[in-house]
Amino acid sequence: MTDFIPTPTAPAPDILRCAYMEVVVTDLAASRAFYVDVLGLIVTEEDESAIHLRTFEEFIHHNLVLRQGAIAAVAALSYRVRAREDLDRAVTFYEELGCRVERRAEGFTKGIGDSVRVEDPLGFPYEFFHDVQHVERLAWRYDLYTPGALVRLDHFNQMTPDVRRAVSYMEDLGFRVTEDIQDAEGTVYAAWMRRKPTVHDTAMTGGDGPRLHHIAFATHEKHNIIAICDKLGALRRSDAIERGPGRHGVSNAFYLYLRDPDGHRVEIYTQDYYTGDPDNPVVTWDVHDNQRRDWWGNPVVPSWYTEASLVLDLDGSPQPVAARTDASEMAVTIGADGFSYTRPDDASDELPSWKQGEYKLGHRL
Amino acid sequence: MTDFIPTPTAPAPDILRCAYMEVVVTDLAASRAFYVDVLGLIVTEEDESAIHLRTFEEFIHHNLVLRQGAIAAVAALSYRVRAREDLDRAVTFYEELGCRVERRAEGFTKGIGDSVRVEDPLGFPYEFFHDVQHVERLAWRYDLYTPGALVRLDHFNQMTPDVRRAVSYMEDLGFRVTEDIQDAEGTVYAAWMRRKPTVHDTAMTGGDGPRLHHIAFATHEKHNIIAICDKLGALRRSDAIERGPGRHGVSNAFYLYLRDPDGHRVEIYTQDYYTGDPDNPVVTWDVHDNQRRDWWGNPVVPSWYTEASLVLDLDGSPQPVAARTDASEMAVTIGADGFSYTRPDDASDELPSWKQGEYKLGHRL
Amino acid sequence: MTDFIPTPTAPAPDILRCAYMEVVVTDLAASRAFYVDVLGLIVTEEDESAIHLRTFEEFIHHNLVLRQGAIAAVAALSYRVRAREDLDRAVTFYEELGCRVERRAEGFTKGIGDSVRVEDPLGFPYEFFHDVQHVERLAWRYDLYTPGALVRLDHFNQMTPDVRRAVSYMEDLGFRVTEDIQDAEGTVYAAWMRRKPTVHDTAMTGGDGPRLHHIAFATHEKHNIIAICDKLGALRRSDAIERGPGRHGVSNAFYLYLRDPDGHRVEIYTQDYYTGDPDNPVVTWDVHDNQRRDWWGNPVVPSWYTEASLVLDLDGSPQPVAARTDASEMAVTIGADGFSYTRPDDASDELPSWKQGEYKLGHRL
Amino acid sequence: MTDFIPTPTAPAPDILRCAYMEVVVTDLAASRAFYVDVLGLIVTEEDESAIHLRTFEEFIHHNLVLRQGAIAAVAALSYRVRAREDLDRAVTFYEELGCRVERRAEGFTKGIGDSVRVEDPLGFPYEFFHDVQHVERLAWRYDLYTPGALVRLDHFNQMTPDVRRAVSYMEDLGFRVTEDIQDAEGTVYAAWMRRKPTVHDTAMTGGDGPRLHHIAFATHEKHNIIAICDKLGALRRSDAIERGPGRHGVSNAFYLYLRDPDGHRVEIYTQDYYTGDPDNPVVTWDVHDNQRRDWWGNPVVPSWYTEASLVLDLDGSPQPVAARTDASEMAVTIGADGFSYTRPDDASDELPSWKQGEYKLGHRL
Repeated sequence: MTDFIPTPTAPAPDILRCAYMEVVVTDLAASRAFYVDVLGLIVTEEDESAIHLRTFEEFIHHNLVLRQGAIAAVAALSYRVRAREDLDRAVTFYEELGCRVERRAEGFTKGIGDSVRVEDPLGFPYEFFHDVQHVERLAWRYDLYTPGALVRLDHFNQMTPDVRRAVSYMEDLGFRVTEDIQDAEGTVYAAWMRRKPTVHDTAMTGGDGPRLHHIAFATHEKHNIIAICDKLGALRRSDAIERGPGRHGVSNAFYLYLRDPDGHRVEIYTQDYYTGDPDNPVVTWDVHDNQRRDWWGNPVVPSWYTEASLVLDLDGSPQPVAARTDASEMAVTIGADGFSYTRPDDASDELPSWKQGEYKLGHRL
Repeated sequence: MTDFIPTPTAPAPDILRCAYMEVVVTDLAASRAFYVDVLGLIVTEEDESAIHLRTFEEFIHHNLVLRQGAIAAVAALSYRVRAREDLDRAVTFYEELGCRVERRAEGFTKGIGDSVRVEDPLGFPYEFFHDVQHVERLAWRYDLYTPGALVRLDHFNQMTPDVRRAVSYMEDLGFRVTEDIQDAEGTVYAAWMRRKPTVHDTAMTGGDGPRLHHIAFATHEKHNIIAICDKLGALRRSDAIERGPGRHGVSNAFYLYLRDPDGHRVEIYTQDYYTGDPDNPVVTWDVHDNQRRDWWGNPVVPSWYTEASLVLDLDGSPQPVAARTDASEMAVTIGADGFSYTRPDDASDELPSWKQGEYKLGHRL
Repeated sequence: MTDFIPTPTAPAPDILRCAYMEVVVTDLAASRAFYVDVLGLIVTEEDESAIHLRTFEEFIHHNLVLRQGAIAAVAALSYRVRAREDLDRAVTFYEELGCRVERRAEGFTKGIGDSVRVEDPLGFPYEFFHDVQHVERLAWRYDLYTPGALVRLDHFNQMTPDVRRAVSYMEDLGFRVTEDIQDAEGTVYAAWMRRKPTVHDTAMTGGDGPRLHHIAFATHEKHNIIAICDKLGALRRSDAIERGPGRHGVSNAFYLYLRDPDGHRVEIYTQDYYTGDPDNPVVTWDVHDNQRRDWWGNPVVPSWYTEASLVLDLDGSPQPVAARTDASEMAVTIGADGFSYTRPDDASDELPSWKQGEYKLGHRL
Repeated sequence: MTDFIPTPTAPAPDILRCAYMEVVVTDLAASRAFYVDVLGLIVTEEDESAIHLRTFEEFIHHNLVLRQGAIAAVAALSYRVRAREDLDRAVTFYEELGCRVERRAEGFTKGIGDSVRVEDPLGFPYEFFHDVQHVERLAWRYDLYTPGALVRLDHFNQMTPDVRRAVSYMEDLGFRVTEDIQDAEGTVYAAWMRRKPTVHDTAMTGGDGPRLHHIAFATHEKHNIIAICDKLGALRRSDAIERGPGRHGVSNAFYLYLRDPDGHRVEIYTQDYYTGDPDNPVVTWDVHDNQRRDWWGNPVVPSWYTEASLVLDLDGSPQPVAARTDASEMAVTIGADGFSYTRPDDASDELPSWKQGEYKLGHRL
C-alpha cells in the first residue's frame, strides 16, 4: 500500500513554471563544450566555477547552471512562483510537511533573488523564487541561431520509487496530471504533470530514486532536433545520442535524448499540446502498448530505464537511492515475463523481429 | 483625449482562453468548401444552417461555427472561463459597465452549455462559457492530418477606433499586453493581449470599428503554412491569399492571411513564445519600423489595413462602424506623408524600390 | 579470389535511370492498402491481378507494379534507356555474357513498350525499355499531396554474395561507384552506383543472394518521412517500421525502412547530393566506423542485414540463393568478434551501453 | 522576325553543368560580409582582390568568384565540360560562329585549369573548363552548417532581348528546354534550359540585354530559405530581400530573391524535379496565368523585371545593352493594357485588390 504524504493545511505556492536546474558537473570545460559549443545554449554569465545558460526565448537570467564539483549530481530543480508572497507559502507548506527548508534573501545562484530551497518529501532539492534579473530575450536574434537552436526550458523528469505517492504530493503542490502510464491492475509507471499549460513542467518516472531522469529543452521544429543529431555525427560525438529521435506516444512530442559528459540526460523536445483547461482530458496509456513511449514502436534502450542522475541534499551530499517499489516498466514490457503489443485488439499480436529490440532476448538466443 | 471606460468594481471573470468564433456566412456550401475541403478543419457536427468545426488538438466541441445568414458578419467572439461562477462574474461585470447582457442556460450554439453574451463597451459581441461537450482530441490521428493541418485556435484580432481605450478595458477584463506598436508621441496603433501564455488571445488593431480583423489558427511548423499556399495554387484559388506568408516582427510568429468566400480574414500562424510570467517584458515597436509587421520588410497590402468584417449586436444586426480617431498606421508609414525605415539609426535610410511596395506611389508616378 | 565476369566487347546500353520495379505480392488488397492508402502512391491503372503505381513527380506510366502471385518475390528491376537502339545493345551485351534474354515488342507490363528482360550474371531479372506511355506529372497537384508524399523513385538495392564481382559487372554496364564500405584488407561490404547524378540508381549489398534488399522512394523534406512514421502509428501499423528514421553516413541522406505486408523492404529517402561529374570523388567508409550506416550511430537491426526478397527468373521461379562469400558486415562490426568505433583515432574508444544495441550480447548476458 | 543564329557544323562541347560565376564587385569587404557572413558560403581561397567561394556539397574549387573592380558586372558564366577534348570543341564551335574566343592553359581564375572564354552570340562571357582543383566536400560537416546553408550552385538566369533566338542557339550548344512562358501568339517571354537533369542550368529571360538576371544557389529545405530571411531581419538588412519567399509556378521550386551590395541578384532555390529523360515533357505557361511566376499569385515587383547586372566582354568592358524586341512580360500582364487571371476558364476572372499588387495603378488612383 502506498504510504501517502499528508496534504498540508497551508496553501501551496502559486508556481508559474519550471525555470532552471542547477547541475554539478565534474569537468566544467567539457560540459561547456557540450552545452555551449554543441547545443548552442547562450552564456548569460560565467566564471571558473559556474556557467549560467539560457535559451533563445528566455528573459530570465538562466535556465541551467553548471557548477564544477566532485560528484555529478543535481543540486536544484527550480520553479518560478507568481509573487514574492508565494515564497512565504512555500516555507509554510514544506515546514508543515516536516521538510528541511532553507531561505536566502540573496538567492542561491547568480541572477536570482530571494529563494527557498527544500528537501522535498520525495528527497528532491526543490527551489522556488520570484525575483530574477531580466536579460535580453534573443527570440528575434536569428543572426545567432544555430540549426538546432534551443528556445525554451520545457520540463524536468524525476525518477521516484512510488509514482502514486509522488503524484499525490505534487497535486497538493498545485500540479495537474495530463497523462500517465498504468496497467490493468492500476499500477502507475509514470505520470506527467503541469503548471504552465503544456503537457508537463515535470514528470514522475517509476524507478530507483530520488534521481533526476532528465531535463528537457524545446526547439521550434522537428528538423532542429535532426540538426543536433547531424552535428553530433559531424563532431564524432554521436555516442552522446542515447535514444531517438522519435515521436512520443505520451505528450505527442518529437524527442531526442542525449547524455552529457557526466551522463546527465538531456531531452530535446518539440510540439506537445495545450493543456490549460481545468477539465483537460487525462490520457492514460496501457504499459503494454508498444507505442506509448515511442509512437513508432521503436525500442527503448535499457539504459534509459535504469540510469539517472543523483540528487543532492541541501548540504550538497547525494541523497540515498531507494529501490522502485512497484513493478518495473522494463520488466513488464520486455523479456521473458513481459509483453508489448502494437494493436490492442489483436490477440495474436506479436512484435516482428525488428521491433523486439534488445528485449526479447529469451526468444533470440 | 481618450474617453476611458470606467473600471468596474466587480471582479472580472477568470478567462482561460479564446475558444471559438461564430461567423455568419452567406453561402454555407462555399464556406464549407473553404474551411473543410481546403483548410481541413474537422466537422464536429453540421446541419443545413450551421457547421461546427474544430482543430486537431482541440477537445471542446468546436473552435468555429459557420452559420448561414444574409449578411456576412461575426456573431460572437467566445472565451472559455475557468468555472461556472465566472459566468455570474461576467454578468455582474458587464452590467456594471451598462452593457446589454444575455444569458442562456442551454447555450447559444450546439455543444456549449450555460453562456453569457454581451455587447461589450467597444461594440463587440463577446461570449463567455464554461460547460462544453468534450469530443475526441485528434492530436494523434496522423492518418487524418493534411499537409497544412490546423491544430489550435490561436487568437482573434479586433479592429477598434481607439486602441488605448480598448486596452484599458481589456486590462480590466484581466488581459495583459505583450506587445504593441506606438509612435514617438505615444499614439498606439495596435496592441496584443493574452490570457493563455502566448502572445495573444486577442489583439486590438486601430481602425474603423467595431470590426473583426481576423481569426487565427495555429499549425505546427512553417512548412504547414507553405503547404496551404501550395494547395490553394493547385486548386486555382490562390486569390484567397491576401498577405504572406511571412515572419511577423510583432509576436515573432510565421504567418499567412487568407480571405474566405465572404471576405472574412483568416490567419494561419505558428511559433510565437511563452508569455506567462507576470513580468513578461512588453515589446513596443516603433510604427515607422519597417520590420514591425513583416520582419522581412515585405509590404503590407492596403486591404489588410482597411478591410474587416462587420460584427453583430445581440439581435443579429450589424453594429455601426465608427471611424479611427487616432492617426492611421497606413498613413504614417507610407505615402507622401509617411515613412518607414529598416535601420533606425541610419538617417539616410531609405527603402529600396522593391520594398516601397505600393505605398510610395508619389515617388513612382 | 573473385571470379570476375568478363567484360563484353559489345557496348553497354545507355541507361538513363532506374525506372520501376515489378513485385509479386501474395495479397494484392493488403499491398494496395499499404502502398496506396498508407504511402499514398498514385494509381495509374489497376485490375484484379495487378496495380500500376507512380510517384508525384513521375511522368512515365509507373514506378512500381504490384502483381498478385503465390510467392512474394521481385519479378523485374527495370531501367529506362536513352533510345530504342539501346535495346539492341542490351540484347547483344547480355547474349555475349551468355545470359538468358527475352525481348517483347509489346512490353512485359502495361504502359511500357518494347522491352528486354534478362537473367543477369548475378541472377537478377533486369529489364530495359525506352518506349513508355506518358501520364500526368502531378508535381503541382498539391491538392493531392499527403504529409508524406513520395515524389520520385530513387533507387534499388540488391543483395549479392560478392560485391567486387558485382561492381565490376555493373561498371561494364556503365554504372559508376559513388561510395562504398570496405575494411583494411580491401573486403567490400557494399557499393553504391549511379547512372543519373545522384548517389545511386542501385547498390550492391554483400549478403546471400541474388535477393532484393529494398526499393527506395524519395520525399522532398525530412518532415515528410516523419509524417509517414506518425501515420503508421495512428493506424497501429508501426510494426511496419523496421529501421529509422535516421541519417545515413553513406549518401548523407535521411532515411526510413519499412516492410510491406509480404516483407518486401521499402526505403523512404531524401537529400543526397549531385554526383554527375566524371571525377566525382568516391567516398570509402571503414566497415568499423559506427556512423557509416547511421550517422548518429544508432544500431542497425539484424533483420536489416539478413532478410531480403527473393528474385524470379524469366519463368517466374525463384532464383536459388547463394551464400555470402566474403566476411559478413554484421559479424565484423558486432558480437564477440566484431567491433565498431565512433572516433577512429581513439584507441580506447568503446561504444556506450546505449549504442551497443542488441549486438554485444556477450557483454550483457 | 527572329534573326536566328546559324547552327555550327562543328559539334558542341559536352557540358556537364553550370559550375561557377565570376562577378565584379565594387566593395569586396561589403560583398564578403554579404556572401560569407550572411549567406554562409565557404571561403576556399581569398586575397585582397578576389574571394573564391563554394557551397557545402561542392568538391570543385569554387562556385563563385568575387573580384574587386570599378564597375559591378558579371565577368564570366562558367560551365564544366565532360573532358579536356570538349575545350577544343568549344573553340571550334564558337570560332565557326565568328565569336571572339580566348583560351588559357592556366585558367582565368584560381583553382581552374585550361579554360576557354568566349563572347557568345548573345553577348555573354561564357567559359568552359574541365580541369579543376578538388577541395573537401563539406556535405557531412554539419558542425559548420548554418540554418540557411547553401548546398549547391543551381543555375544562372540571363536577360536577352529575343528569347526564341537565344533558345535556338542554346539548343545548338546542347541544352534542352524544360519549361517556358508564351502567349497565344507564340511570343516567348522566358525559357528554362538544362544540361544536368534539373529544371535548368540557365534560363533566358526576355528583356534588355545581354545582362545577368541572377545566380541561384540551392538549399535542402524550405525552412532554410526562411532562415535566411529571418537572419536578414535580425541584421537589419531585410532590404536585401527583393522578392519572395514564394513558390514558383515554373520549376515548382521554392524561392527567394536577394540583392547583393552591388545590386547583383541572388536566388535561393529548393526542390525542383528530375528532367533527365530525353522526352521529358516541356511545360509551357501562359504569360497571363497569374500563378506562372508565383504559384500563390503574389505580385512580382517591377524591379525584378527591369533590373539586371551588366556583363563584361573579354577585355573587361561592359557589353552594350540592346532593348527587348518582343512584348514585355510586365506590360502584357499588368497595367492598363495587361491582364492576368487565376482561373483560366473563368471569363469574369479578376484579381482581388490584394493580388493586383503595385501594377493596376490605374485602377487604384
